[in-house]
Amino acid sequence: MQIRALPLFCLSAGFVALASLAFIQKPATVKAATTPAVYTPTYTAAGDLIPPLDYRNWVYLTTGFNMSYTPKTASDGSPMQMFDNVFVNPEAYRSFLETGTWPDKTVMVLEGREAASKGSINKSGNFQSGGVMGLEIHVRDEKRFPGKWAFFDVESETRATLFPQTANCYSCHAEHAAVDTTFVQFYPTLLPIAQKKNTLSPRYLKDVADDSAK
Amino acid sequence: MQIRALPLFCLSAGFVALASLAFIQKPATVKAATTPAVYTPTYTAAGDLIPPLDYRNWVYLTTGFNMSYTPKTASDGSPMQMFDNVFVNPEAYRSFLETGTWPDKTVMVLEGREAASKGSINKSGNFQSGGVMGLEIHVRDEKRFPGKWAFFDVESETRATLFPQTANCYSCHAEHAAVDTTFVQFYPTLLPIAQKKNTLSPRYLKDVADDSAK
Repeated sequence: MQIRALPLFCLSAGFVALASLAFIQKPATVKAATTPAVYTPTYTAAGDLIPPLDYRNWVYLTTGFNMSYTPKTASDGSPMQMFDNVFVNPEAYRSFLETGTWPDKTVMVLEGREAASKGSINKSGNFQSGGVMGLEIHVRDEKRFPGKWAFFDVESETRATLFPQTANCYSCHAEHAAVDTTFVQFYPTLLPIAQKKNTLSPRYLKDVADDSAK
Repeated sequence: MQIRALPLFCLSAGFVALASLAFIQKPATVKAATTPAVYTPTYTAAGDLIPPLDYRNWVYLTTGFNMSYTPKTASDGSPMQMFDNVFVNPEAYRSFLETGTWPDKTVMVLEGREAASKGSINKSGNFQSGGVMGLEIHVRDEKRFPGKWAFFDVESETRATLFPQTANCYSCHAEHAAVDTTFVQFYPTLLPIAQKKNTLSPRYLKDVADDSAK
């Protein structure tokens, strides 16, 4: 089955197709990942990122359900529903707790999971079923990337390809993200820390003020 | 604000009120929890469980959205929406990966989080906002509990009260849960392991067979 979902970090309305990142499901992979080593972003000569496969052992930040940053249109019509789970490497998380912002080499993983409604004894609402619909990575590597951060799309166990700096995700995160181009406003355990440490971006604070004035 | 949500592990339609387990949000608590020690279930003389406060540093299993095991009725009508996040202690998780089932002293935490829709740049779908709506714990302690497991409701930073063995959660989990009274059918990374290790309960396999025959 073809690996493809619309960019997750650029959350757009609708999902075009189901991804089958089957390697995430392999028990062997999960097993190997139970004592996570420190992950440092590593790249191929072609500029691809070698993805962290043990991110499910990292620190969990949040989950969204069918989130979209663009208005739905009549043509969307996709019946597909999706959860997106966000994880961050533990070293970066610990640093955030101390400082209210992210250190260099922070790696965040956004995992799209198929949402099911019918199954077992569930009568309403949605649960996460087997399929991984997409996997994206947001990396802070300030010497490597013009805006310090870059987004990657995981294509296989060994390769995540760079989203070009012209992709919408970069401008949207720069304009609206609460802390250093990351959507801390959606991470309920971290937002209070950023508030306390005064690390919320001026643009985000303006968004909040504009919303309050409506 | 009053702490109260309908039992989460007994997921029933609707939520009666917002909980305010504010201590989960305190940066100091989160900070203290960054290098989690091994947690062993500990009880007061009165039989209350002393809850693990660093469960957000444990292994994440899944998230549901507005899940319910009972049909909705016209009288539910609650506008409140909720995510439920499930975490397990890392030692138990590692054991599950090896065996396909849970060791004694397994501790699972189910955290209900308020779901918001309007906020920041989100246009549709739901994200987790600040509030913890409820916190329940499922503990395997075979020498202590008649059915080996027990459910607890977290009331404060130092106290989780036991659900009586007559509560619906016990019978429902015994009848429908995929592995050893736990809903592994909703944990997408663990279900394949239970399948491979042949640890799915006969009752769950009968449920699956009955569903397929419909």
